[in-house]
Amino acid sequence: MTYRVMGVDPGLTRCGLAVVDIEPNRRSTLVAVGVVGTDPGRSLDERLLVISEAVDSWLDLHSPEVLAVERVFSQLNVSTVMGTAQASGVVIVSAARRGIPVALHTPTEVKAAVTGNGQADKTAVTKMVTKILRLETPPRPADAADALALAITHAWRRGAQPGVTPGLVTPAQRIWAEAEARARRR
Amino acid sequence: MTYRVMGVDPGLTRCGLAVVDIEPNRRSTLVAVGVVGTDPGRSLDERLLVISEAVDSWLDLHSPEVLAVERVFSQLNVSTVMGTAQASGVVIVSAARRGIPVALHTPTEVKAAVTGNGQADKTAVTKMVTKILRLETPPRPADAADALALAITHAWRRGAQPGVTPGLVTPAQRIWAEAEARARRR
Repeated sequence: MTYRVMGVDPGLTRCGLAVVDIEPNRRSTLVAVGVVGTDPGRSLDERLLVISEAVDSWLDLHSPEVLAVERVFSQLNVSTVMGTAQASGVVIVSAARRGIPVALHTPTEVKAAVTGNGQADKTAVTKMVTKILRLETPPRPADAADALALAITHAWRRGAQPGVTPGLVTPAQRIWAEAEARARRR
Repeated sequence: MTYRVMGVDPGLTRCGLAVVDIEPNRRSTLVAVGVVGTDPGRSLDERLLVISEAVDSWLDLHSPEVLAVERVFSQLNVSTVMGTAQASGVVIVSAARRGIPVALHTPTEVKAAVTGNGQADKTAVTKMVTKILRLETPPRPADAADALALAITHAWRRGAQPGVTPGLVTPAQRIWAEAEARARRR
């Protein structure tokens, strides 16, 4: 009954990867976390290939039931946005080739799901991810916290398993359920 | 000695594909031209997979020596730019997986190479592509003309084969050489 989600925070220079197992009672366990980095001095095709091969091998190794990817926006008119979009395309198609469904979540959705506040900063997200996953120290590498948060968010937004009453076992999970209830009331 | 170039004009809804053979004397021959369309009503992962599989099959069927792709810019702040970037990432990685080198050219470079004017309109580009490829009618589908222009541009910008004096055999090729000479003088 464990639901395995892979989260990817796409980027051309650093791409956060995370795999989390979520039980019907929402207890969440870290399976794997990492970052695939590419050298900005290499060509675009070489960099995208590194990302593609890393995601392929994570999908094959961990066999997630779904891939959750951060939705990218053109409104963020920064120099890296095109590379981020290209990387996200490569990541999405890796899952699609394997018949693994892909879900997109915005940064605001992820922050709201994990902290209860869509405007939360990186520190707050990392703190809640650390609690939700019952880790003793914040996840390393630090910039993979968003990928973990994405995976958790997807499992949450998907809703509870049918017929299962969530059993809340940690303070973080209680906070999480309260935040969810607040979000539902909106 | 024929140099085979595949050109791709990336897009999520319509992606132009073209393969052109270019001889050392710059005589250019159409090998294949087409458009892969995806249904905007389908999910992003399904659409990117359709593009990925189309490009894979073209690369396997035609074995180009290089893939020329239009460079996308975030400055074009239009709603389709993120989908275009995601599609381009998928296209680029298809070539990278096969060890086929990828070259990026801007729309201005393509227009300048084919017509001698970086601000040329679509009609002018199509007209010159038709001439360069010695076609009796403009290429169909019409929106694949940019992919053909990309392939031709790449072969041109790559420069003449070493030790080969270009033999200009058509008026279009003479215009082309003159435009190239002008570009070099700048």
